[in-house]
Amino acid sequence: MQNLKLASIRTQSKTIIEVGSMKFGQDFVVIAGPCSVESEKQTLEIAQAVKSAGAHMLRGGAFKPRTSPYNFQGLGLKGLKILEKAREAAGLPVVSEVLDTRDVSWMCEYVDILQIGARNMQNFSLLREVGKIKTPVLLKRGMYSTLSEWLNCAEYILSEGNPHVILCERGIRTFETYTRNTLDLSAVSALKELTHLPVIVDPTHGTGKSSLILPMSLAAVAAGADGLIVEVHNHPEIALSDKDQALTPGQFSELMAKAMNLRAYMENAY
Amino acid sequence: MQNLKLASIRTQSKTIIEVGSMKFGQDFVVIAGPCSVESEKQTLEIAQAVKSAGAHMLRGGAFKPRTSPYNFQGLGLKGLKILEKAREAAGLPVVSEVLDTRDVSWMCEYVDILQIGARNMQNFSLLREVGKIKTPVLLKRGMYSTLSEWLNCAEYILSEGNPHVILCERGIRTFETYTRNTLDLSAVSALKELTHLPVIVDPTHGTGKSSLILPMSLAAVAAGADGLIVEVHNHPEIALSDKDQALTPGQFSELMAKAMNLRAYMENAY
Amino acid sequence: MQNLKLASIRTQSKTIIEVGSMKFGQDFVVIAGPCSVESEKQTLEIAQAVKSAGAHMLRGGAFKPRTSPYNFQGLGLKGLKILEKAREAAGLPVVSEVLDTRDVSWMCEYVDILQIGARNMQNFSLLREVGKIKTPVLLKRGMYSTLSEWLNCAEYILSEGNPHVILCERGIRTFETYTRNTLDLSAVSALKELTHLPVIVDPTHGTGKSSLILPMSLAAVAAGADGLIVEVHNHPEIALSDKDQALTPGQFSELMAKAMNLRAYMENAY
Amino acid sequence: MQNLKLASIRTQSKTIIEVGSMKFGQDFVVIAGPCSVESEKQTLEIAQAVKSAGAHMLRGGAFKPRTSPYNFQGLGLKGLKILEKAREAAGLPVVSEVLDTRDVSWMCEYVDILQIGARNMQNFSLLREVGKIKTPVLLKRGMYSTLSEWLNCAEYILSEGNPHVILCERGIRTFETYTRNTLDLSAVSALKELTHLPVIVDPTHGTGKSSLILPMSLAAVAAGADGLIVEVHNHPEIALSDKDQALTPGQFSELMAKAMNLRAYMENAY
Repeated sequence: MQNLKLASIRTQSKTIIEVGSMKFGQDFVVIAGPCSVESEKQTLEIAQAVKSAGAHMLRGGAFKPRTSPYNFQGLGLKGLKILEKAREAAGLPVVSEVLDTRDVSWMCEYVDILQIGARNMQNFSLLREVGKIKTPVLLKRGMYSTLSEWLNCAEYILSEGNPHVILCERGIRTFETYTRNTLDLSAVSALKELTHLPVIVDPTHGTGKSSLILPMSLAAVAAGADGLIVEVHNHPEIALSDKDQALTPGQFSELMAKAMNLRAYMENAY
Repeated sequence: MQNLKLASIRTQSKTIIEVGSMKFGQDFVVIAGPCSVESEKQTLEIAQAVKSAGAHMLRGGAFKPRTSPYNFQGLGLKGLKILEKAREAAGLPVVSEVLDTRDVSWMCEYVDILQIGARNMQNFSLLREVGKIKTPVLLKRGMYSTLSEWLNCAEYILSEGNPHVILCERGIRTFETYTRNTLDLSAVSALKELTHLPVIVDPTHGTGKSSLILPMSLAAVAAGADGLIVEVHNHPEIALSDKDQALTPGQFSELMAKAMNLRAYMENAY
Repeated sequence: MQNLKLASIRTQSKTIIEVGSMKFGQDFVVIAGPCSVESEKQTLEIAQAVKSAGAHMLRGGAFKPRTSPYNFQGLGLKGLKILEKAREAAGLPVVSEVLDTRDVSWMCEYVDILQIGARNMQNFSLLREVGKIKTPVLLKRGMYSTLSEWLNCAEYILSEGNPHVILCERGIRTFETYTRNTLDLSAVSALKELTHLPVIVDPTHGTGKSSLILPMSLAAVAAGADGLIVEVHNHPEIALSDKDQALTPGQFSELMAKAMNLRAYMENAY
Repeated sequence: MQNLKLASIRTQSKTIIEVGSMKFGQDFVVIAGPCSVESEKQTLEIAQAVKSAGAHMLRGGAFKPRTSPYNFQGLGLKGLKILEKAREAAGLPVVSEVLDTRDVSWMCEYVDILQIGARNMQNFSLLREVGKIKTPVLLKRGMYSTLSEWLNCAEYILSEGNPHVILCERGIRTFETYTRNTLDLSAVSALKELTHLPVIVDPTHGTGKSSLILPMSLAAVAAGADGLIVEVHNHPEIALSDKDQALTPGQFSELMAKAMNLRAYMENAY
């Protein structure tokens, strides 16, 4: 980690990033919503559902990085406009992924947090571009990325002038095929020793299996994570992407309650 | 997992394995002690210390699988005799690793649980041999092993007639170098869906860093583990093996209290 | 590979891509040059040296994707202008990496082949953008990428209308630390079964060790590769990037002769 | 590699191991035969076929390490007696795998080379045991093993007094699923820098696909390997193990001719 300057824990105390009424790095922040924005009806319904369950923010993909060019690629601008409506209707800040340097400046008008996905973690042009704005950035770990490489990507953003970087552990690629990725919760604890930036966990992509999302969410709380980002769909069986790993609103509601309770216990007990 | 018969969750309900006053699969069982048995004095001191901190069992290596033939290889029979004394003095059941088919039958006289280490997970001769006895077996996951392969190794033991198999997640090998291995806590939750055997976690080898052992232990509790196995040394700085990852008795005492409290909370809350 | 349409071997016979006087997919094409364009003097000298050794094309990075923002990031447009001079002086077509969608259209004026680097393999915006031009694209394999994912990235380019895609195996990330990456030569042979696109090999990044580049180049020829891309520096010890893996002009000259001879033998013998 | 004493290239010049009329470390040695000894008829037929094709030694498993206890485990002693007959009938030295320390001394009566399989690479008891005899040992690389760990396993054998160790690269486990393992041919070249021991390649397990075995064998020759070990079956479609990766006698015959020709070319040309 010898190259780190701004992102290092030796530089400053914990970074607090305020979005809406929540503070990353202080509060436990839960972001929930569909993998993709598929339609206005779907998005508004899910937004309302996760809001009712207590989620603090809404996620939803308008630009989708898909393995095949023939898979659903997202609704683009139309999707962002739907997110804008959902944002207003549910009163939740919105997180969405940016894929292209040319979209950074205008997408900020639609979203509260810009996500850099795992496949673009080392898209240095994109990192520089989101470093030039003030909108908070959710920087996912690349599936092949060491902690050192990941923190250097945060450093790219910080060194351009944007201090609002939230790290997100989302699983790394290993030989194991039972889970989609291997969620590396030790990364959460390790990052607390290395950086002042907040760290949240994505148990959805981290496991790829809806049955493992609740226990991994609780484990993330226990490991010291600053929040969660979880995929929720009102009808997972017909979702246009990631249907095996989306929670139903009912399952999310249970997760939300248990995670917040555990977090409260951890804060009181230790 | 199509080949699994005896180890599959579809075969029977949860396996309970009684060792001393504890029941794996029901109680939360913490095993602690030195990496290697180095001397009588060291072992007795550590045994007393972990007993005072509340540990339920004592671990200690008499036969050590070391990368280089020139590293300390363990005290062998002398080490087992020391463990026997420590067992009596502290009143703790003892866990120790077996490396050779020829040692299985007589080592049972000295230990309460025989450990099969990660490097021998697919030593099928050794698996068959411990399948022929009744002593419980702690089967560590190989560092390159899928869940399916691991469960098939348990199946080797069960199919020979020994039903007392405890699985132990101890981290898998990945590209990440900050930690010694990548602790796969999703394996714990996944195994609950797949098998009736108890599953404990080794955060010591799973991380290789003493500072990460406490948070990963708590995360293991939250993920639903049935226990922990942790390396503790009275003088980590002069330990003959694994000195960077051993907890002091004081650190272990903190871990023990927090882990047991969290387990109690989890059982009450959910 | 079920999603592949245009890139699949079932679609058409071998793709031939003509660049200068060479045909990828038919001739054995060797691309050589510095990791980074550092100065006009350095670039012209190396271009002349690799030309004399028999190289068919010149590589050189003007935009460099570096782990840390504080490392040398390349000379940018200035670097491309130097490459243009070197191209003319040595009479070699030029390959250089593009990092940003906004640079695709104008960079084509300076280079004969646009490279998509390993870190951007799944930068789908960039893939689409290079799919809209006619300049050949050298698509490196991501360090965490399966063959299926890689071919789907080629499919992104092909499906936008650019049929000139050259695949480049450059090593994948594994647990091994002796080499920088693990060069997967079986990928070369496997791709011959799966796709009609030409496949070249980068032994420089594939091994990260100058002593291994010659044997891995010969192994690549034997595995059926359509060419090589190799880093050469006139003074490796003072290179601004990748100095441990650059060949001297003398070493490259030996490699060039041996690789071309082996290729000729393979074509005659089989 | 700091712990290496006896296995290091700094210790001595190239080790030559004589088996029958061949010299590992000097000649290019090809070992071929069935995955498992299934019956006398099958084994004698295959032995004759590989002999006719020019193979120098016969391989065949009598004790088979299988993932599931319910898979065919080999014929044991009966299989070794069949190998003995095949050895005599075909006039080929025999290689077979040993799984248990208790079998080492008597198995030497039946075989010319004892194989330590990938799963037992770090079975240190077994390594010590084969270190006490004089029979040559074929030490396969563990599927998760670094070069350093592998060489330390050779060191275990050498340090017990048996200098006859042949290393065998057989692929490492990665995320790639198209091939069974990822054959690491750079390991062959790297080992030439690190050790004086001969290194052969197993393209059968290294790829798991019969179509890739020929090109990977040729690549192994080009990388500088000292030999090959290849699975051949007279009726791959009904083989009791590894049927997707066995060559027919006809395919092996082609491989044998091409590999020996390429080796001859390499020796003359360089």
